[in-house]
Amino acid sequence: MPSLSQRSKNIPASPIRKLIPYAEGALKRGIKVHHLNIGQPDIHTPDVALLALKKLDKKILEYSHSAGYESYRRKLAGFYRKAGIDISWEQTLITTGASEAVSFTFNSCLDYGDEIIIPEPFYANYNAIASIAGVKIVSVTSGIEDNFALPPVSEIEKKIGKKTRAILLCNPGNPTGYVYSAGELELIRKLVKKHGLFLVSDEAYREFCYDGEKVISAMNLREIEENVIMIDSVSKRYSECGIRIGALISRNREVMSTALRYGQSRLSPPGLGQIVAEASIDTPPEYFTEVNREYLARRNFIIAALNKIPGVHCPVPKGAFYTMVRLPVDDSDRFAQWLLEKFEYKNQTVMLAPGSGFYSTPGLGRDEARIAYVLKTEDLKNAAMVLEMALKVYPGRTQ
Amino acid sequence: MPSLSQRSKNIPASPIRKLIPYAEGALKRGIKVHHLNIGQPDIHTPDVALLALKKLDKKILEYSHSAGYESYRRKLAGFYRKAGIDISWEQTLITTGASEAVSFTFNSCLDYGDEIIIPEPFYANYNAIASIAGVKIVSVTSGIEDNFALPPVSEIEKKIGKKTRAILLCNPGNPTGYVYSAGELELIRKLVKKHGLFLVSDEAYREFCYDGEKVISAMNLREIEENVIMIDSVSKRYSECGIRIGALISRNREVMSTALRYGQSRLSPPGLGQIVAEASIDTPPEYFTEVNREYLARRNFIIAALNKIPGVHCPVPKGAFYTMVRLPVDDSDRFAQWLLEKFEYKNQTVMLAPGSGFYSTPGLGRDEARIAYVLKTEDLKNAAMVLEMALKVYPGRTQ
Repeated sequence: MPSLSQRSKNIPASPIRKLIPYAEGALKRGIKVHHLNIGQPDIHTPDVALLALKKLDKKILEYSHSAGYESYRRKLAGFYRKAGIDISWEQTLITTGASEAVSFTFNSCLDYGDEIIIPEPFYANYNAIASIAGVKIVSVTSGIEDNFALPPVSEIEKKIGKKTRAILLCNPGNPTGYVYSAGELELIRKLVKKHGLFLVSDEAYREFCYDGEKVISAMNLREIEENVIMIDSVSKRYSECGIRIGALISRNREVMSTALRYGQSRLSPPGLGQIVAEASIDTPPEYFTEVNREYLARRNFIIAALNKIPGVHCPVPKGAFYTMVRLPVDDSDRFAQWLLEKFEYKNQTVMLAPGSGFYSTPGLGRDEARIAYVLKTEDLKNAAMVLEMALKVYPGRTQ
Repeated sequence: MPSLSQRSKNIPASPIRKLIPYAEGALKRGIKVHHLNIGQPDIHTPDVALLALKKLDKKILEYSHSAGYESYRRKLAGFYRKAGIDISWEQTLITTGASEAVSFTFNSCLDYGDEIIIPEPFYANYNAIASIAGVKIVSVTSGIEDNFALPPVSEIEKKIGKKTRAILLCNPGNPTGYVYSAGELELIRKLVKKHGLFLVSDEAYREFCYDGEKVISAMNLREIEENVIMIDSVSKRYSECGIRIGALISRNREVMSTALRYGQSRLSPPGLGQIVAEASIDTPPEYFTEVNREYLARRNFIIAALNKIPGVHCPVPKGAFYTMVRLPVDDSDRFAQWLLEKFEYKNQTVMLAPGSGFYSTPGLGRDEARIAYVLKTEDLKNAAMVLEMALKVYPGRTQ
């Protein structure tokens, strides 16, 4: 029997991959599992988006252009202009989710062995995408005690070497919920300019922002117009993760024409998803007001509830719908497994995303977990209670 | 300004990429372009598939499992069993088009620099996907004078070296329309077994088969069950190219679990496409009878019309909806451009896919072109007439 490629063995698994069989086991024992581990919102997709499918009068579901339907690209550019990001439709490339936009970016800008600097903790899937592209992620650690603010620029600059081609920011941050300030982005802007790097800005959570914070798009940083590549997605904005529509946005023509070559290799992005995404742009503003109000209530509830548990510390995230939480445990991978395998309170338990998967520095994140507040407050209440009870009896408790 | 990756420059462009501006030019001059160059059928998507969208009652368009919805995978396995391919649903992985299935296969089975043997002419996109994966395609030439039958096994065996990990067959063939015989597949089976290789079988055109031919699936070759990976797609079967749904099928558990890691890195295949593809399995048999009758009529017409043109030779393809045609021209790239840029007959011209893009041996295919008979017979008639008139006056005519 032929053996498989060596490189496949190096693709990092998702932080929760090992936990899935245990979650299934809990389910089989009749235990309700509160999923704090996932980024699949329970918010309804806007009616206007679903209606577009019902009204579809195509007779042939044909390929779109490799860069996406022109009608969608034009409307999307209009959406960005309204949001204060002045681009033309030719500066958009529609991708199969943000994942593909990240993959096209890594392949277009970095060669095998080249390096990209990312503040950690970061979205775990970057690891897999980088590994497939043969790109090395160099992390700079941000700390829970600083609310995961940008690490000192001197720390970032130390990591810039011959092979460094880019810096990636996720803003608002997954898994941290952190929103970068104007001052922080100015520091990054100068650094990118000074060293002639690409700045990859993953802004998939732009609309999820609380307490009066505003996300400053990297597309609006001056004098690095040619350096910036924005990654975007409609998955979270309109709660339509499954349609797999993202975008790669840049004013750099060479970047766009190179990324398109990757786009042509997969023929076209999903056509039905594009139709839904195009219709979604007409979502009424009240939808977002309501969604943001809902998330804000959930955030306020879960942060307060977590911080009330003895030994637990959780900063207040200003964006997205995640938070990193510090737990008084020996190893959050072990704790998360134990929750599913050994624990239940009133026939319920909780699934967490262990922190280590979001760090590339070995050993970091072992006392942290990512929590997604995508459940109804009532469920979050039960989940927090389960967590509190679990920490009282977990054998690996540290404090 | 940062420069782009070197590797991006090595991705081969599609055979028609350079022609697109000339086609747009012709259009602007008011000339009707008959597109013999594309694989986008004009056949309607089955009603049952379109109806599934109208009836959709989801409130959230959520992520599916990374391997696809279980309901679709179960139904798809049933579809294969009916077609005489005995597999279970766990042996299916739903992909974003067949392109992604090829990409997952190359990455799962081959390391950077490893080799895969493919009879040429072959589907040009394999080049781009192989280049992105860092895999080397080693071609074995099949000839138009043999109707593109399998090259002698001794020729294939000569190419097997230390780095060879797999053989890929496209059956029925794009761009040749060739359908491999039981005898040919037996030779390949022995070779694969003897050398412990993977056999990648792209069967996306399985249902398009004429003159009583039957496609023998590589999944049914004995004693190499663990070696075979089947690539499939619903794009052509149900004329729904735009939904981007394909599949990777194998009985090899290690292959499936490895491919799934790539699947997890992009979260999930398109959800709406899966819903359409699942519904499409209920397409009534009459749909296929009618589609095959239509393609058969088109094939019979275009092959006869082409062979009537002095100096033109075209074998009779037994499957798919393509044919390679030999033209009395110096260089089909130049000829194709000239057709769009300089020629018109009764305000019409033709767009061809030049042959060279389907060969990896330099110099081959320069007197060939791929023709897709996905147009109505009336249009094919006009296209053949245009081609005949063009060859009378083309300055680079060779005979």
